[in-house]
Amino acid sequence: MHALRFHECGKPAEVLRLEELPPPELLDGGVRLRILAAPVNPADLNFIEGTYGVKPELPAVPGIEGCGEVVESRSPDFQPGDRAILLRRAGTWADEVSLLAEHLFKLPEGIDPLQAAMLKVNPATAWRLLTGFGTPPPGSWILQNAANSAVGRCVIVLARTLGIRTMNLVRRAELRDELLALGADEVVTDDDSAVDSAKAALGKDRPSLAFNCVGGESALRLMNLLASGGIHVTYGAMSRRPLTVPNGQLIFKDLQFRGLWVTRWIESAPREELDAVYGKLAGLMGSGALSVPVAATYPLADFKAALEQAAGSARNGKILLVP
Amino acid sequence: MHALRFHECGKPAEVLRLEELPPPELLDGGVRLRILAAPVNPADLNFIEGTYGVKPELPAVPGIEGCGEVVESRSPDFQPGDRAILLRRAGTWADEVSLLAEHLFKLPEGIDPLQAAMLKVNPATAWRLLTGFGTPPPGSWILQNAANSAVGRCVIVLARTLGIRTMNLVRRAELRDELLALGADEVVTDDDSAVDSAKAALGKDRPSLAFNCVGGESALRLMNLLASGGIHVTYGAMSRRPLTVPNGQLIFKDLQFRGLWVTRWIESAPREELDAVYGKLAGLMGSGALSVPVAATYPLADFKAALEQAAGSARNGKILLVP
Repeated sequence: MHALRFHECGKPAEVLRLEELPPPELLDGGVRLRILAAPVNPADLNFIEGTYGVKPELPAVPGIEGCGEVVESRSPDFQPGDRAILLRRAGTWADEVSLLAEHLFKLPEGIDPLQAAMLKVNPATAWRLLTGFGTPPPGSWILQNAANSAVGRCVIVLARTLGIRTMNLVRRAELRDELLALGADEVVTDDDSAVDSAKAALGKDRPSLAFNCVGGESALRLMNLLASGGIHVTYGAMSRRPLTVPNGQLIFKDLQFRGLWVTRWIESAPREELDAVYGKLAGLMGSGALSVPVAATYPLADFKAALEQAAGSARNGKILLVP
Repeated sequence: MHALRFHECGKPAEVLRLEELPPPELLDGGVRLRILAAPVNPADLNFIEGTYGVKPELPAVPGIEGCGEVVESRSPDFQPGDRAILLRRAGTWADEVSLLAEHLFKLPEGIDPLQAAMLKVNPATAWRLLTGFGTPPPGSWILQNAANSAVGRCVIVLARTLGIRTMNLVRRAELRDELLALGADEVVTDDDSAVDSAKAALGKDRPSLAFNCVGGESALRLMNLLASGGIHVTYGAMSRRPLTVPNGQLIFKDLQFRGLWVTRWIESAPREELDAVYGKLAGLMGSGALSVPVAATYPLADFKAALEQAAGSARNGKILLVP
């Protein structure tokens, strides 16, 4: 088999190498998959750099998620030809992986493997944001920044299925029409005017739940727009700046600050809950209601080009490796 | 009657005046009290400066809490001679107040009125910190900074009644023996060594609840000492610096950041809950188990000296006005 591996943490383009490795061992109750697609996520890059919440055991194969086709099974639950996504980190930047059947979610028929490869993290993060802190009642508003990110777009689509309205902050004003077409209720530019613009659109309503993937000033705007007693959830830090919380927002306004790391949920939720949520999300993906834009795909050998495009800021959609 | 009043917000010593005012009107169901003692709290000073969570209606009499003796009653629940504390802001920096009986808590016999004057805010804040976010089980640790403050000392005493152990951060190392004598389990100096010192004392235990009255670096030390999934509660901001929260503490460590403003609890809790909590706290105060150090008392006319001493940093105990 072939895999991208790194022997020390560092800049991904510098430390990754395409290597030929022995085929992965197939355990009792295990499944060997041919990887069909695996995205390049910010979490993968942080993992390679050694700055993620989980440290790599070196040498390591990156790849936090992916979609594969069963080529050999020692589990009664899987047959060759079945397609599945990986619910555990297994190094998907490779042409093959082997893992226990209990760490897979079997896909229904007819899902695009590129889309399915992105099902584990972003749509599930959006679902947990909307439902993991008390699901807001239909008709109420939620608030988010980075609304054009893969998670942000999933939030817009999933909120609509729950009857929840979305107030979306984006850095680039020209994205407004595209997000409105996707189902956003309001889109405002994430600059000094954002709070006034959002208040004008909200009238007397104030959201009680906000999703922060940016930090810094943008996170502060979400605080200023939340209702008293509201919950401010951080799931990313695109600005690489910490959260600065004025004391009055905690003491007098009674805001709550929480975090979400979907991996913790995946590793701790009961299997029935995982099946229910991924079943629902896979159904929406299969029908085309839920989709993550794809900017480009690359074979493993072209990983440097993939990383370069993934690092570009104006990219519209995800980069995927297709081994 | 006489009262300290201000006609514009500003520095307390500059804007306050001792004024003679008409006696307060006694309403149906109301009680007129002679004020026996009223503390000078940081919240009072912020209220006069116009920087508190509640803005004054000018001209205003400050005084967020106090203890008084009934001189006239139009409520069946109170007789002249009864003593009570005020559960609603009523301007206690005066020799008389008049308010509805439902906004009073009648004191049991034998409580020092100086102590009782401080019952409403600090002991109740400590009680809410310990019980309002899920009461930690007996034997577990809580963590606090500003442990020598009036609230901090109440936390130490009340935690002991609940079987909870306290890890206390203080700015002045020489307070260690005094707080240990009060019932603290551990006391460490709130500087760069605090995290290592506390970890050495805690062994493998990590607290799941931390009380922050300082902000800045000290608040960050509490985060570093909390267990994953722990709750960090801010109830004051002595450093006047906001909370800076590293994203990893939210996303990977799953800390929750909350605030406590005891006034909100007083104004929203059912009357039976208020009676139960203040009854318990008054009992502990009456027995001498719970007490707040008193640095000095001043008549209303000497308010400038009172404010000056209250502003001193090395003061040990509260300043009270005794009209």
